[in-house]
Amino acid sequence: MSTSQNIPNIETRTVVALVEDRPGVLARIAGFFRRQGFNIESLAVGKSEKEGLSRMTFVVEGAPDVIGLVAAKLDRLIEIVEVIDITEENFAYREMALIKINADEKIRGEILQLANVFRVRVVDVGADEMTIETTGDSKKIDSLIELMNQYGIIEIMRTGRVAVLRSSLEINTKKEK
Amino acid sequence: MSTSQNIPNIETRTVVALVEDRPGVLARIAGFFRRQGFNIESLAVGKSEKEGLSRMTFVVEGAPDVIGLVAAKLDRLIEIVEVIDITEENFAYREMALIKINADEKIRGEILQLANVFRVRVVDVGADEMTIETTGDSKKIDSLIELMNQYGIIEIMRTGRVAVLRSSLEINTKKEK
Repeated sequence: MSTSQNIPNIETRTVVALVEDRPGVLARIAGFFRRQGFNIESLAVGKSEKEGLSRMTFVVEGAPDVIGLVAAKLDRLIEIVEVIDITEENFAYREMALIKINADEKIRGEILQLANVFRVRVVDVGADEMTIETTGDSKKIDSLIELMNQYGIIEIMRTGRVAVLRSSLEINTKKEK
Repeated sequence: MSTSQNIPNIETRTVVALVEDRPGVLARIAGFFRRQGFNIESLAVGKSEKEGLSRMTFVVEGAPDVIGLVAAKLDRLIEIVEVIDITEENFAYREMALIKINADEKIRGEILQLANVFRVRVVDVGADEMTIETTGDSKKIDSLIELMNQYGIIEIMRTGRVAVLRSSLEINTKKEK
């Protein structure tokens, strides 16, 4: 099952790749996405647990008939050590967002009370604004942004999505094999 | 002042760009980095508060004589609406990491106690492993990874760095102008 989209004939896939950590690798991968006409909705790149290798998590949109092959096609790029399309797997998704909102001292308390429900952390407080940090799946973060809209959002900084295979599935898979 | 590096003659800069959210934009930017010989240490891409625009935060490494010009050069790409080199600004940095570690029931409590210091959240628990989530600056996350190394790290998923201008500075800047 793919994520439902508002735009017809566009499907979203989440792909995790372990790649060589050197100049030009992202250019090769991004060039591949461009040639395929895929749009990158979110991207997270950071060092992996393996020396010299980074892990990239892409959320890409494209036509259903080609996007399903994204992992198989990426696997042919020599800089990619390992790639997996996790869209249909039992993964836990997380992203982080920093949200800067209008908040003078009169409404600061109110915002904090509302934000508490979302397990929000305060990153910075100024005279007329504050920045909060939240983590969760995209849906949770979208909801918080919607909630904060009433105060006036100054800036949103979202990391891409990262994902981890749930252990329960891994255990089941091992048993089944 | 630039971030100190282990490798001599390599300097790290953090750049935030507001870019058009359409296919090919990342390829253009990544191609630019490749031509300049810059390595991308971390990258976070997500939707911004503005419809049709994404915000990208790059941590790039390169030779000191050229990396300082990275923002000015990026600014010439038409897909880039706004770009700022925040390396020397008073920004709060945050990234998120999911860390999957070996953790059978005997040591689970011990790990949780240690991890508590780092304000860690548990994302998933299996029979022999667990996944924790943490946010903070790179240094804090590196320290947690080092701490968790003793148990055996299975996988690390790091988002790129995102950053927010501290309000205090913004207020000062306004006053100075």
